[in-house]
Formats: sequence, C-alpha cells, structure tokens
Amino acid sequence: MLENIINVLERVKQEQPLIHQITNYVSMNDCANVTLAVGASPVMTSDIEEVSELVPHVSALVVNLGTLQSPNIKAMFVAGRRAKDLSIPVVLDPVGAGATSRRTAVARRFIQEIQPEIIRCNMSELKVLCGADVMIKGVDSATTSEGGETAAMCLAERTGSVVAVTGAVDLICGGGLLIKIANGHPYLTRVTGTGCMTTALAASCAATGNVFAGAAAGVLCMGISGEVAAASLTDGEGIGTFKIRLIDAIFCLNRDIIKRCAKLL
Amino acid sequence: MLENIINVLERVKQEQPLIHQITNYVSMNDCANVTLAVGASPVMTSDIEEVSELVPHVSALVVNLGTLQSPNIKAMFVAGRRAKDLSIPVVLDPVGAGATSRRTAVARRFIQEIQPEIIRCNMSELKVLCGADVMIKGVDSATTSEGGETAAMCLAERTGSVVAVTGAVDLICGGGLLIKIANGHPYLTRVTGTGCMTTALAASCAATGNVFAGAAAGVLCMGISGEVAAASLTDGEGIGTFKIRLIDAIFCLNRDIIKRCAKLL
Amino acid sequence: MLENIINVLERVKQEQPLIHQITNYVSMNDCANVTLAVGASPVMTSDIEEVSELVPHVSALVVNLGTLQSPNIKAMFVAGRRAKDLSIPVVLDPVGAGATSRRTAVARRFIQEIQPEIIRCNMSELKVLCGADVMIKGVDSATTSEGGETAAMCLAERTGSVVAVTGAVDLICGGGLLIKIANGHPYLTRVTGTGCMTTALAASCAATGNVFAGAAAGVLCMGISGEVAAASLTDGEGIGTFKIRLIDAIFCLNRDIIKRCAKLL
Repeated sequence: MLENIINVLERVKQEQPLIHQITNYVSMNDCANVTLAVGASPVMTSDIEEVSELVPHVSALVVNLGTLQSPNIKAMFVAGRRAKDLSIPVVLDPVGAGATSRRTAVARRFIQEIQPEIIRCNMSELKVLCGADVMIKGVDSATTSEGGETAAMCLAERTGSVVAVTGAVDLICGGGLLIKIANGHPYLTRVTGTGCMTTALAASCAATGNVFAGAAAGVLCMGISGEVAAASLTDGEGIGTFKIRLIDAIFCLNRDIIKRCAKLL
Repeated sequence: MLENIINVLERVKQEQPLIHQITNYVSMNDCANVTLAVGASPVMTSDIEEVSELVPHVSALVVNLGTLQSPNIKAMFVAGRRAKDLSIPVVLDPVGAGATSRRTAVARRFIQEIQPEIIRCNMSELKVLCGADVMIKGVDSATTSEGGETAAMCLAERTGSVVAVTGAVDLICGGGLLIKIANGHPYLTRVTGTGCMTTALAASCAATGNVFAGAAAGVLCMGISGEVAAASLTDGEGIGTFKIRLIDAIFCLNRDIIKRCAKLL
Repeated sequence: MLENIINVLERVKQEQPLIHQITNYVSMNDCANVTLAVGASPVMTSDIEEVSELVPHVSALVVNLGTLQSPNIKAMFVAGRRAKDLSIPVVLDPVGAGATSRRTAVARRFIQEIQPEIIRCNMSELKVLCGADVMIKGVDSATTSEGGETAAMCLAERTGSVVAVTGAVDLICGGGLLIKIANGHPYLTRVTGTGCMTTALAASCAATGNVFAGAAAGVLCMGISGEVAAASLTDGEGIGTFKIRLIDAIFCLNRDIIKRCAKLL
C-alpha cells in the first residue's frame, strides 16, 4: 500500500490535475494553497451558473459543507451530478454534520443522491452519518478506536464510498480494505481548516484515478507534513509558524521522507 | 485588574469555549486562527438557517460588520437575539461604521435592539456611534485622548455595554470602570483584520463569564503579542512575517510575559 | 521609465491611497495585505447597497472576477460606472475569462461598458479577450512572446486601456508604449492569488494618477519581490514560507532594491 501511495503522490506532481472545490470561506485560501503544494491546481468556483460548465474540465470535485449557504447547496448538487455523469471522482467533506440539522440533512442527502467516491470526515461527523447503525451500540462506542473502525466500515459498505476518518489514528476503508495511519500532530487540531485541507489533498490524489490509494495518500501527506512542521518549531513559535511550515512540508514531501516517517498500521 | 486579566486568559485555555463568529470574509481565517491560538474554538457559520440552532451551544457570539450583505444582516440579528435570550455574551465589531450610511445604521440598530455586552471598535467608529453627544464638542475633540475617553464613557453609559476602543492607547470602559492599555505596535495597523482579531480574542475571553476583564484581556493579549512579534523581526522581514509571529505570540502568551510587558495605565 | 516607476512606488507610501476592491473570496485577505504592504489602504466591500457611497472616497477601484456571484456582478458595474463618472481609475482583473462563457461575457461587457484604465490579466485571458483579432493568426501564436505582444497591443488599442499581461515575461502596453519586464519566479505560479495581488498592487500604484507607470510599478513590484522571496528560502522551505516572504519583500521594497534587480526590456 505504501508504494501505491507514494506512486499516487508522484503522479499528482506529474499530471497536475485540476481540482474543482466548492468549499467554505474560512479555509478556501489554505485549501487552494495545499492543492498547489501537493502539485495539483485548484479552481474554487461555487456559483451555480458556472459549475456545470467547469466540471467537465476538472479531474476531481470537492464538496465541503463548511459554510453552507442556500445558493451554494444547489451548486453542490448540480456539480456533483455532473461529475458523476462524467465519472469524475467526487470527494465530500461533511463539515459540521451533526452540529445543525440542516448540515446533517445536506450531508446525508448528498451521500444518497451523489454517492461520492470519498467521504473525508472526523469521528463525530462519522457517527452522525452512520446514524442508527452505530447508535444501536451506543454513540460512545464510536469514540473508541474499535467503535470507530466498525462505524467507518459500516458507512463504507452502505454507501460504496471510501471513508477516510481523520483523528489521532486515521482510518481509510472501502471495498473491504481498511488501513490505519498513526501519523499526525496535535497542532493539526489547533489550526483552522486542516481537515478541509486534508480533503483537498485527498481529492488531488484521487484525481489520478486511484480512489482508495488517493484517499490514503491525502491523509498520510497531511499527517507526515504535520509531524515535519511541528518538529521544525523553535521556542516562541506556535500555530502561526506551524501552518506555514505545514504547507512547506507538503510542498517538499518526497519518497524518502514518506518512507522514513509513514506509520501505516 | 492585571491579575483578573491573567486569570481570564488562563481560564480560556482550560475551558476552551466555543465562539460563534458571524464575521467578514476578509479576516475570517485569521479570526478563526487567533481564536484557536488563545485556547478557544471557533465556529463561523453565518447562514440564517443555522444560527438559531448553533447559538445555544456556544459560549459567546461575535457580530462583525466587515463585509455586510443583506442575508448576513438578518442572521446577525437572529443570532444576537437568541444569544441574549440565553444570556450568552454578544460582542459587536462595528467595522466601518461611518464609512457608509448602511453600516452606521446597522451598527446603531444592533446596539439598540441587541444591547451587546461588548462593543469593540476604533476611535473613528466610536465617534460615529456616539453621534450627537460628541459632535457638540466638535468631532475633532474625540481624536485627543481626553475626547476619546469621554466618548467611550458616554457610549458605555448610554448602552450599558463594555466599550473597548483600540488605538495608540486602548480604552476599556463600562460599569463606571475605565482602564487604559498602552501596549501595541504600529505594524498592527499594517496588517488587515487585527481589529477583527482583537474582537475574536475579547469574545473568547468574555466567554468565561467575566465581560469587563474579558474585553480587557482580549485587547491586552493583542497589544502584547504585537510587541513580541515586532521585536522578533530581523532585516528584510515585514508585515508578512509579523502576522505569523503575532499568531505565534498569542499562542505562546503566558503569565510571565504578561507581567513583564503589560502597560496598564 | 524605471525612474517613473520608482517615483510612483514612493508616492504610494506617502499618499497612502484608499483602494476599493471588489474581489474574490479566495485571495481577498492576501490582496488586502499586499495593498497595505505597498503602502496603500484597502476597503473590500462588494455589496451593492454600499459601493456607490464608498467609491467617491477612494483613489482607485479593483474589479476582480475570481469568484463571480450574481449579486456581486451588479455591484461591479455600479461601482465601475460611479468610478468612471468621478475619474477614479478602474482596474479589471478578468480572472478565468475563457474558463466559462459567463466569465468571458462579464469580462467583455465590463471592458465595453466601463472602459477600465487598466486590464491586468495572464496570457490565456488575454487571448480570450482579444477574440477574433488574434484567432485569425491562430490561437497558439499568442503563446509565443511575439504573438503575446501583438495581442496585448491589439487589446490596448481597441479598448484604450493599459493592458498588463503577466507571465514569464510581463508586458505592459497602452497609448503606443510597450515595456517588458523579465522579473519574477516560478513559485509565483505555485501560490494562489499572486495574479490578484499584482492587480491590487497595480491599482494601488495607479491611484497616484499615473496609470501606465502605475500598472508597470505594480507588475515590477511583484516580480522583484518574488525573486527576493525565493532567494531567501532555505532547505525544507517551500511555497508556505515563500508567500510570507513575498509580502515581506513588497513591504521592504525600496529604490536601491529596484535599481539593483529591475529587468526592464
């Protein structure tokens, strides 16, 4: 698997795929920059008048629910359907599913109607998306690593999507496969939008055509880069410098660094 | 007061309060990151369909008029009323009051209808919000430190809000109290959104329940961090690096640094 | 010309002109910060209710099509017309002209109806805006330096605008003049929004009243600053640090650095 992941990351740099991102206003700039850092190219249009015309020219579509607004929701579904019709991989980031009933509803409807190739979420969003399946065992079971795995495999099986759950240990599962990644750093939770950025990386990698390895490559890229960035900090440096070094580390990531740092379980 | 301020900043890190921010598109990412840097947690939703459901789960609400748009204005009032009903502190940043008649009107209406716990503004916004009270003495009087103090105390008395005015010398007044803070650095006026970030810090601190000390803690945190950031710059470094170090300094701020640097008048 | 350009950049720092920018959500924060870095002052309002009242107070207007949305399009034309009526220079950045038919149409209509003083674009946007004129010689001819020059001169002549095309070699032409600038660095294409930032710089410089030298000054400022930023990078640093140093370099740019680095052809 590690060799596949490395190959995917190298192919992104060669192919420079165009990644259409309908995303939130908070982390939009950072998502565009990590897309460039990993070697792909971003286009961030979210207007319903334009998305149908743009989608045929891109190699992957990100739909991120971070700052939902009614006109953008329509654009997400229009773009999603167009991408599916053209067999372009769709990556959903159900930001804040569970935080409001609208987000939960939009996330669930998007999964049902569009069937995204990848769902990239955190553990609490996963629990919400799993709904009854996991609730039966008690919501809290999903907070343990075992409960999380069960929930992620459940969702992957029910939806046919690759499910990539990031946390202290990341889970990537789909098509009967499950890998765990133990890379990362607590500072990744202290910078806004690192989840959204991971989604942008996963889409950039999935644009090469390999969905499962692409999702894993995006998650691993963020985890290792977080470690490299944190290790570079000196006294008096904090999350401001960390975010800049994180983008640097994504940009400088290569086969040697990955082989030395990857913690695939 | 300094001990109160330090306690508030320490409590933010312990309690990690969730801060709802209906804010502008320009400084949104920086506001989220300084909220994380000070130890709180941001949620930036501004859609009218979601704000009512989110507000009960947060510990403070920021309403920032930086990029007003009709749908967001409605969300600001809905969220503001909900927060007041639930006794959640509301912090208004009347960005650009006076620049257009609409901003002035929205700022005044928000103060009248919602009665925010804190108004965080600059001197020219203060003058506009004071209206006739200050105009009688001539607008320019408000540019002097004395005129500024009178205007701030006037507004605090009329509205019942804590008024936090940032400038070369910051003023925090309300409930008969007035403190002045002489920290800060001119580069804070050369980076976009430092006022908005100060508002986010004040809300993060007020979320601990202590409104006056919270407002002062937010303002002091930005002033000292600006000094620390500026002092760290070397030849060839400018406002790009300054902004990153500013976030680092907020993240690294502690009791010792505050005691060494605070200039409370 | 170099002396004119240096004078313009020095005047921006003295006059601190206010630059109204109706721009995209991706690079908005960076555009505001480079505007401050070069010595001007940004105001980013794009709401139709406010633009008419703001425009009379500013020294230049930027209209950037990066994230078109129907309400903003109206505001762009209202603001553009108001600026023209008041002889305030208007700078158009036709981001993504050619990528969708709507962008192409809005860009063309803006040029026709508003007649902006400066059009700041890249080579593929230039080709689209030139339309038939260039198509006759074959689209690909415009990718060569000679084709590019012909296209830029064509557009400048037809519209009366100064046309500033950025690329490996930048072209600034208008009023029978043509200058070429060979500064820059490939990393400028690996950070999102550097084109938008160049437009903000050009508007800041054109606000001094000298449109042609202003456009050239903005483009030269970005090119040299990109070189300075890239030269400062050490092992393990990439486009994250590059963007921060780019803003630093714009902030620190002065007569000596310009004289030493400028490559005007």
